Amino acid sequence: DFMSALEEVKPLFGVAEEELESRLRGGIIHYSPNIDSILDQGRTYVNQVRTHAATPLVSVLLHGPSGSGKTALAAKMALDSEFPYIKLVSPDDMIGYSEMQKVQQLDKVFRDAYKSPMSIIVIDSIELLFDWVPVGPRFSNSVLVALKALLSKQPPKDRRLLIFATTTERSVLSQLDLLRRFNASIPVPNVQTQQELAHILRHTGSFSDRDQGRAIAEIESQTGSKEIGLGIKDILMGIGTAKQHEDVADQFAWFISDAIASSKVI
Amino acid sequence: DFMSALEEVKPLFGVAEEELESRLRGGIIHYSPNIDSILDQGRTYVNQVRTHAATPLVSVLLHGPSGSGKTALAAKMALDSEFPYIKLVSPDDMIGYSEMQKVQQLDKVFRDAYKSPMSIIVIDSIELLFDWVPVGPRFSNSVLVALKALLSKQPPKDRRLLIFATTTERSVLSQLDLLRRFNASIPVPNVQTQQELAHILRHTGSFSDRDQGRAIAEIESQTGSKEIGLGIKDILMGIGTAKQHEDVADQFAWFISDAIASSKVI
Amino acid sequence: DFMSALEEVKPLFGVAEEELESRLRGGIIHYSPNIDSILDQGRTYVNQVRTHAATPLVSVLLHGPSGSGKTALAAKMALDSEFPYIKLVSPDDMIGYSEMQKVQQLDKVFRDAYKSPMSIIVIDSIELLFDWVPVGPRFSNSVLVALKALLSKQPPKDRRLLIFATTTERSVLSQLDLLRRFNASIPVPNVQTQQELAHILRHTGSFSDRDQGRAIAEIESQTGSKEIGLGIKDILMGIGTAKQHEDVADQFAWFISDAIASSKVI
Amino acid sequence: DFMSALEEVKPLFGVAEEELESRLRGGIIHYSPNIDSILDQGRTYVNQVRTHAATPLVSVLLHGPSGSGKTALAAKMALDSEFPYIKLVSPDDMIGYSEMQKVQQLDKVFRDAYKSPMSIIVIDSIELLFDWVPVGPRFSNSVLVALKALLSKQPPKDRRLLIFATTTERSVLSQLDLLRRFNASIPVPNVQTQQELAHILRHTGSFSDRDQGRAIAEIESQTGSKEIGLGIKDILMGIGTAKQHEDVADQFAWFISDAIASSKVI
Amino acid sequence: DFMSALEEVKPLFGVAEEELESRLRGGIIHYSPNIDSILDQGRTYVNQVRTHAATPLVSVLLHGPSGSGKTALAAKMALDSEFPYIKLVSPDDMIGYSEMQKVQQLDKVFRDAYKSPMSIIVIDSIELLFDWVPVGPRFSNSVLVALKALLSKQPPKDRRLLIFATTTERSVLSQLDLLRRFNASIPVPNVQTQQELAHILRHTGSFSDRDQGRAIAEIESQTGSKEIGLGIKDILMGIGTAKQHEDVADQFAWFISDAIASSKVI
Amino acid sequence: DFMSALEEVKPLFGVAEEELESRLRGGIIHYSPNIDSILDQGRTYVNQVRTHAATPLVSVLLHGPSGSGKTALAAKMALDSEFPYIKLVSPDDMIGYSEMQKVQQLDKVFRDAYKSPMSIIVIDSIELLFDWVPVGPRFSNSVLVALKALLSKQPPKDRRLLIFATTTERSVLSQLDLLRRFNASIPVPNVQTQQELAHILRHTGSFSDRDQGRAIAEIESQTGSKEIGLGIKDILMGIGTAKQHEDVADQFAWFISDAIASSKVI
Ligand SMILES: Nc1ncnc2c1ncn2[C@@H]1O[C@H](COP(=O)(O)OP(=O)(O)OP(=O)(O)O)[C@@H](O)[C@H]1O
Ligand SMILES: Nc1ncnc2c1ncn2[C@@H]1O[C@H](COP(=O)(O)OP(=O)(O)OP(=O)(O)O)[C@@H](O)[C@H]1O
Ligand SMILES: Nc1ncnc2c1ncn2[C@@H]1O[C@H](COP(=O)(O)OP(=O)(O)OP(=O)(O)O)[C@@H](O)[C@H]1O
Ligand SMILES: Nc1ncnc2c1ncn2[C@@H]1O[C@H](COP(=O)(O)OP(=O)(O)OP(=O)(O)O)[C@@H](O)[C@H]1O
Ligand SMILES: Nc1ncnc2c1ncn2[C@@H]1O[C@H](COP(=O)(O)OP(=O)(O)OP(=O)(O)O)[C@@H](O)[C@H]1O
Ligand SMILES: Nc1ncnc2c1ncn2[C@@H]1O[C@H](COP(=O)(O)OP(=O)(O)OP(=O)(O)O)[C@@H](O)[C@H]1O
Ligand SMILES: [Mg+2]
Ligand SMILES: [Mg+2]
Ligand SMILES: [Mg+2]
Ligand SMILES: [Mg+2]
Ligand SMILES: [Mg+2]
Ligand SMILES: [Mg+2]
Repeated sequence: DFMSALEEVKPLFGVAEEELESRLRGGIIHYSPNIDSILDQGRTYVNQVRTHAATPLVSVLLHGPSGSGKTALAAKMALDSEFPYIKLVSPDDMIGYSEMQKVQQLDKVFRDAYKSPMSIIVIDSIELLFDWVPVGPRFSNSVLVALKALLSKQPPKDRRLLIFATTTERSVLSQLDLLRRFNASIPVPNVQTQQELAHILRHTGSFSDRDQGRAIAEIESQTGSKEIGLGIKDILMGIGTAKQHEDVADQFAWFISDAIASSKVI
Repeated sequence: DFMSALEEVKPLFGVAEEELESRLRGGIIHYSPNIDSILDQGRTYVNQVRTHAATPLVSVLLHGPSGSGKTALAAKMALDSEFPYIKLVSPDDMIGYSEMQKVQQLDKVFRDAYKSPMSIIVIDSIELLFDWVPVGPRFSNSVLVALKALLSKQPPKDRRLLIFATTTERSVLSQLDLLRRFNASIPVPNVQTQQELAHILRHTGSFSDRDQGRAIAEIESQTGSKEIGLGIKDILMGIGTAKQHEDVADQFAWFISDAIASSKVI
Repeated sequence: DFMSALEEVKPLFGVAEEELESRLRGGIIHYSPNIDSILDQGRTYVNQVRTHAATPLVSVLLHGPSGSGKTALAAKMALDSEFPYIKLVSPDDMIGYSEMQKVQQLDKVFRDAYKSPMSIIVIDSIELLFDWVPVGPRFSNSVLVALKALLSKQPPKDRRLLIFATTTERSVLSQLDLLRRFNASIPVPNVQTQQELAHILRHTGSFSDRDQGRAIAEIESQTGSKEIGLGIKDILMGIGTAKQHEDVADQFAWFISDAIASSKVI
Repeated sequence: DFMSALEEVKPLFGVAEEELESRLRGGIIHYSPNIDSILDQGRTYVNQVRTHAATPLVSVLLHGPSGSGKTALAAKMALDSEFPYIKLVSPDDMIGYSEMQKVQQLDKVFRDAYKSPMSIIVIDSIELLFDWVPVGPRFSNSVLVALKALLSKQPPKDRRLLIFATTTERSVLSQLDLLRRFNASIPVPNVQTQQELAHILRHTGSFSDRDQGRAIAEIESQTGSKEIGLGIKDILMGIGTAKQHEDVADQFAWFISDAIASSKVI
Repeated sequence: DFMSALEEVKPLFGVAEEELESRLRGGIIHYSPNIDSILDQGRTYVNQVRTHAATPLVSVLLHGPSGSGKTALAAKMALDSEFPYIKLVSPDDMIGYSEMQKVQQLDKVFRDAYKSPMSIIVIDSIELLFDWVPVGPRFSNSVLVALKALLSKQPPKDRRLLIFATTTERSVLSQLDLLRRFNASIPVPNVQTQQELAHILRHTGSFSDRDQGRAIAEIESQTGSKEIGLGIKDILMGIGTAKQHEDVADQFAWFISDAIASSKVI
Repeated sequence: DFMSALEEVKPLFGVAEEELESRLRGGIIHYSPNIDSILDQGRTYVNQVRTHAATPLVSVLLHGPSGSGKTALAAKMALDSEFPYIKLVSPDDMIGYSEMQKVQQLDKVFRDAYKSPMSIIVIDSIELLFDWVPVGPRFSNSVLVALKALLSKQPPKDRRLLIFATTTERSVLSQLDLLRRFNASIPVPNVQTQQELAHILRHTGSFSDRDQGRAIAEIESQTGSKEIGLGIKDILMGIGTAKQHEDVADQFAWFISDAIASSKVI
C-alpha cells in the first residue's frame, strides 16, 4: 500500500540531495518579502500533491530573467518537501547526449518517479534541454514532444508527481505550445531596488557601511537610474571581482553598471 | 462468419479498458445539456458502424480548446460502445519512438483492429502524434502521411472500424489536409457560463454555497467579465489548489482568474 | 511473339482484380451524362494503347475534388480493359515504407508491367505517394523524381503501357513539373445539381420520394444555394449516418449542409 | 598510340547504339529548315573534337520546351558521329539510385570515356539528373557539384571528349551556375507554324488532305491564334489518339487545342 | 586536499605551454597603454579565481576585430597565471571532427580541468568552434548547446576554473544567447592611431626613421584619413611583404592601404 | 635541420608537376602588361615565404571572371617557385567524395606540406570545393569551416607554407567570412580590349591579318561595343570552333559575340 511503498524508495533520496545542494551554495538571501512569497507558493503545490488525491500530477514553472535565482529556489522547494523521490534534470548532465538519449534519460527519470508514491522532478533550464537557440529558431523537436507528453502523462494509480521547471524563456515556451501544459507558474524577478541591493551587500559582509552607500550612489550615477534590474547571481559575482581591488566600492559599481548595460544590449 | 469472429477477439477488450478508464478518473460531470448532445452524436456513429454495412469505415474528430474534456469524452464513447476491439493510441505511450516506430505502431493497431469484426480506435492528441510544433512549423511528415493513408484505407471484407481522434488544433489539421479525411467532427467547448461553473462546484462538493457564490463573484470582478472560457480540466485543478488554503473561495478565484488571463496571452 | 507473351502473364491478373474491385464497392451510379463521357475517354486511351504501336506509352491523369469518385472510375476503366497485367499502386499499401522502399516498389511494378505485352498501372492519390503536405511545402523528392522518370521511360520493344493516376492536387502537380509529363487528363467533378443528388438518393433506395424532396429543400435552405458541390463519397456517407435517425431527411440535410460548409473553410 | 587505342574500344559502341536508337523511334521529320541547321551545328562540334587537338573537351547544351525533340536530336548527332565510344546517361536508368550512386555512375561513364581516344557522352534531361524540383527549389547538390567538376575536367593526354546535354530548364542551369560551364548551346524550338504542322501531318500519312486542312483550321478557331507552339512529341501523341475516333480531324484538333491550353497554364 | 591535488596535476602543464607560446611568436608589443590595461584585467580574474572561493567559475570573453591580437593576449594571460592546468581549445585542432566529436573533446577538456584545483581553459575563436557561417546563418547547434551547458556548469567541490574565450563575433554570441553566459568581457581594439603604428614600426626595426614617416604619410594620403583601423596581425604581415621590395615604405603603404580598403568592403 | 629536411621531400615534387602542367596546356600568352604584373606579385609572395621567417604562412587569392586564366596563372606561379613540395587541390579530383572525405583529404594535403620546409598548396576553384551553389544558397559547412581553420593554422616550427587559391566568387567568399582569412589577393581580369584580342589571334597564328581585322570589326558590330570582356579560355575555344568553317573570321565573330551575350544574361 501507499505507506510501505513510501518506505521502499527512501534510499533514492540521498543522491539528488547533493546535486540540489550544490545549486544552493550561494544560499537563499531573503532580500525582499517576495522571496518568502515564492517559497510559500512552492509549499502550496507540495501540499496539494501530498493531500489531494484528485490531482496526482501538478506541474509548476519558475520563470524570470537570467541569474534571478530560479534554480536555487526550485532546489530549495524540492529539498524542503521531504518527498521520498527527488530528482534534478539538468542540461549540464546531458552534454554530448543525442536527442534520443536525452528523451530516454527523461523517460527514465519519470519512470523512476512513478515507482515512488510521491515524487518531485526539477527540470532545470528547460529551454536548454530541448536545445533552444533563438537564431533560426532551432530546437530539438523530439525532446520537446517528449516533454509535452511527459507533462500530460497521468502517473499510475496511487502515484503522485510534482514537477518544478525553470526557464528564462517563458514566451518561447508559449510559442512552442509548452507553456499551457504547466498547471501553474511562478515569476522570479531580478533584484530591483537599491534597498534590496543594500540588503544583499550587508548580508555578505564584504562592504563597510560607507562603501555600501558609495557603491550604490556610484551605480545610480553611472546608469542614470535608481533601478537595479540585475540577477542576484551577477551581484554575487560582482562582489567577488570587487574584492580583488583596493577600492572595493568603486570596482563593484563599475562591474555592476557594466553588467546592467550589457544586459540591455542585444 | 461475423458472429463467430466476434466471439474470437473478445479477450482483447480488457487491456484497453483500463487505459481508457484512467482518462476518465475525473468522471463526466453533466454540467450542460451540450455534454449529453456530444455523447449522443458518439452513439450515432457507433450505431452506423454497427448496422450500416455500406460504410465500414467512419472517422470522427473531437476538437476544442485545451482541457475542455475531449479525451475523457472520446474514452466514454468508446467504452460505451461495447465493441469487441477498442484501442487507445496516445502520444505518451510513444515517448522516445522514432518516426518509423510510431508509424509501425499505428500500422499494427490498425492491423489488429481489422482482425475484429467491429473495432474502435481512439487517437488521442493527434497533432502530438505527428510531433506538431507551431514554430517552424515542424512536424513528422512520415507519421502524418501514414495517418492520412490509414484514415482512407478501407477495412477488409466483413470488417468495420470506427475512429475517434482528439485535437486542440483543428485549423492545423485543415492546413495539413488531414481534416477532410475525417467523415465528421464534434466540437467540445470550454466551460462558458457562471451557471456551468456553479454546477461543477456543486457537483464536487468542495465549496459551501456561500463560498461558491463568493468565488464566482470574485472571478467576475477580477476578469471583468461574466464569461468563464476555461476547460473543465483547469477548473478541477483549481479546486485542488484552493483546498490547500483557508480561504478556499478567494484562492480558487485567484487561480481561475490567473488561468483565464494566461490562456489569453500568446 | 506478342500473342504467346500475352498468354504467359494472364495469371498475374487475378491479384489486382480483387484490390480494384474493393475500390468499387459503392458501384458506379450514372447520376449524370458526364459519368458516361468520362468512362468513354478511358476507353479511347485503352484502345490507343491496344492498337497504335507508335505510342507504346500513354499516361492519363484523373483529377478532381476530394471524394468525387476518381479512384472508383480509374478502377472501372482498368478492369474494363481486360489487359493481361493490371496493377494498383496505392499509398495505403506503402505505410511505413521509406522513400527508397517506395521508389523500389514503384520500379518493380513498372518492371513487372514491361513483362506483359499490354499493361495498365493505376497510381492512386499520386500526391500522397510522394508525401505531399501543403505546409512547407514538404514532399519526397526522390519519389517525385522517380515518378517523373517512370512517366517518361519508353517501354521495351513490343511492350505497351497505359498509366491512370488520380489526384486532388492538379495545381500541385503542375508546380512540381509533374503535370506536363502526362499525355492527357480527365476532370472528375463533384455532384453539382439537385437533380444529380436526387438521382443518387433514388438509386440507393433509402429515401421515400417525400423525404427526398424534403431533404433537398432543406439543404437549399441551410446552404442558401441550389448548388450542391460535394463528392459522391460524402453523399453516400451522409445516407449511412441519416439512416440511424428517425427523421432521415432532416438528419441527411444537416449532415450534407455541414459537409458543404466544412469543405469551403480552410 | 591514337590509332591502336581507337581500335581497342570499338566493341563498346554497340551497347549505346540500341539505347540511342530507341530515342529515335519517331524518326526525325525535317518539318523546318531549322532542323537541318541544328544537325549542322552538331556536326561542327563533332568535327572540332575530331580535328582540333587544342580543345580536347567540348560541351554543348540542347535546350528548349518540353517535347520539342531535344533527346531525339542529340541521339541523332551522337549516332552520326561514328565515334568509338558513345554513351547515353539518362535519369530513367538511375531510378532509385542514391545521390552518391548517381555521382559514381557519372564518374564511371566519364572514366570509361577517357579510355577511348574520342568519345561522346549524351546527358539527357540534365535537370532531372540532379533531381531539380522548382518548389523549394530542391535539387541534389552533390550531383550538381559532380556535374560541374566533370564539365571542367580536362581529359587525359591524347583523349578527346564531346558532351551533349539536353534540358528544358536553361534558366535554372544559369541560376545554378552550370550553364556557363558549357562551351556552346543550341536552342530546339517547338513546332510553331501551321505550315510546319501540315508538314508533319502529311509526313505521317494519317490524314487525308481535307482532314488536314480542317484540323488546322479548327485548331486556329479553338486557340484563336495561327501560332501552334507545341512540341513534336505532343503532336505525334495527338495523331495516335485521334486515330481512335471516327472524325479524326475533329478529335485531333480537340487534343492539340487542349494540349496548347494546358501548356500555357501554370 | 587542495595543496596535494595541486601537486598531482603539475605535469599536465608543459603540453599546453608549447601550444600557447606558438600563438605568441609575434610577441606582445606594448604599442598603447590599452595593452597594459587589458593584461591587468586578465590578472584580476586570475586572482579572483585563485582567492575567492565563492566564485569557483569565472568566464571572460576577449572580443574585437579580426587580427587585433585576441588570441595572443589570451595566451599571455593564461601563461602568466601559473595555474597547474592550462588548456587551449582551438578549431584548428578539430579539423574533420564531427559535431559529436567536438562536443566530446570539449567535455573531456572540462573534465580534465575539474581534476586540477585551479585551471584555465582558453577557447579560441569560439564562433568557429560551433561552425558559425553568417550565410544562412548556419552553425552547429549541438556544439553551441554544449558550450552553454559547460559555461554554466559549477565545478565540483574545491575545484576552480577560469575560462578565457576569444571571438570576432560578439553580436553573434549575443543573438545566440551565449554572450550572457560569460561573467565579463574585454574588448581588444585595432591599431588606431599613426602614433601606435609608428610605435610598432620602430619596435620591429625594419624601417629607417625616414621610411617610417614616409610610409605613414603615404597611407594617410591613400586612405584619406589619419585613422588606421587595422589589426596588428595585418600590420606585421605588411612589414614582411614590404621587405621583399626595394622601396619598403612605398610597398608597405600600398599593402596597408589595400588591407584597410578590403576590410571595409563586404 | 632546414637543409636536410629540404632534401628529404624532393621526390614528392614530380607528382604535382604533371598535374599543374596540364592546366597550362594553352600556355601563357602575354597579351597585356598586366599578365607580367600578376606573375610579379606571385614572385613577391614566393620570396616572402622563402626569406621572411616571421611570416611562415602566407595565403593569396586569385579572383576574376569565369575563364580569365586564374588556374593557369596560379599553376605557373607554383611551378616557377621551385619549392620542394607543391600540391594542387582541385574539385575534379574529389568527385563523389563525401564532405568528411574532402575535409580529410584537405587535412592530409596540409599535413604533408608541413613535412617540407617550404611548400605551396594551390586550391583551385575554392568555391566548388565547398559545394557552393547560389540557389539557396547551399554549401558544405564542414568543408568551409575546415578551410577557415587550415588558412589560420600556423605551420610547425621551421616550416613555411604559401597558399594560392582561385575563385570566380570573391563576394561569396566575403559573405562567408572566408575572404578576410587570406593575407592578399590578386585580380585576374578578362580580355578587355581589341588590341589584347588581336595579340591573342596573332599569337595563335590561326588567322590571316585580314581575317583578324574582319573578325574584330564584326564582333564590334554585333555587340555594339569596342569592349570585349571575355575570358581567354572562351577565346581559345572560339578559335577552335571557327577553324571548322570556311569563313573563319565570320564564324569566330559569331561564336565570340554569342559568348559575350550569354555571359551577360543571368
Ligand atoms: N533569494 C535568493 N534567491 C535565489 N538565489 C539566491 C538568493 N539568495 C542568494 N541566492 C544565490 O544566488 C544564486 C542564484 O543563481 P541561480 O543559478 O539559482 O539563478 P538562475 O536564475 O537559475 O540563473 P540562470 O538564469 O543562469 O539559470 C545562487 O547561487 C543562490 O544560492
Ligand atoms: N463533462 C465532462 N467532459 C469532459 N471531461 C469531464 C467532464 N466532467 C468531468 N470531466 C473530467 O475533466 C477532465 C477533462 O480532461 P481531458 O484530459 O479529457 O481534457 P482534454 O480536452 O483532453 O485536455 P487536453 O486538451 O489537455 O488534451 C477529465 O479528468 C474528466 O474526467
Ligand atoms: N458515378 C460514380 N463515380 C465514382 N464513384 C461512384 C460513382 N457512383 C458511386 N460511386 C461510389 O462512390 C465512391 C467514390 O469514392 P472514391 O474513393 O472513388 O472517390 P475519390 O475521388 O477517389 O476520393 P478521394 O478524393 O478521397 O481519393 C466509391 O465508393 C464508388 O463506388
Ligand atoms: N525533327 C524532329 N526533331 C526531333 N524529334 C523528332 C523530329 N521529328 C520526329 N521526331 C520525334 O519526336 C519525338 C521527340 O521526342 P523527344 O523525347 O526527343 O523530345 P524531348 O524534347 O527530348 O522531350 P522532353 O522535353 O520530354 O525530354 C521523338 O519520338 C522523335 O523521334
Ligand atoms: N600588443 C599585442 N597584442 C596582441 N598581439 C600582438 C601584440 N603585439 C604583437 N602581437 C602579435 O600580433 C599577432 C596577433 O595575432 P592574433 O592571432 O593573436 O590575433 P587575433 O585577434 O587572435 O586574430 P584572429 O581575429 O584572426 O583570431 C600575434 O602574432 C602576436 O604575437
Ligand atoms: N595570359 C594567360 N593567362 C592565363 N591563361 C592563359 C593565358 N594565355 C593563355 N592561357 C590559357 O588560357 C586558359 C585559361 O584557362 P584557365 O582554366 O586557367 O582559366 P580559369 O580562369 O581558371 O577558368 P575557370 O574560371 O573556368 O576556372 C588555359 O588553357 C591557359 O593555358
Ligand atoms: Mg538556473
Ligand atoms: Mg486530451
Ligand atoms: Mg481516391
Ligand atoms: Mg528529352
Ligand atoms: Mg585569434
Ligand atoms: Mg580555374
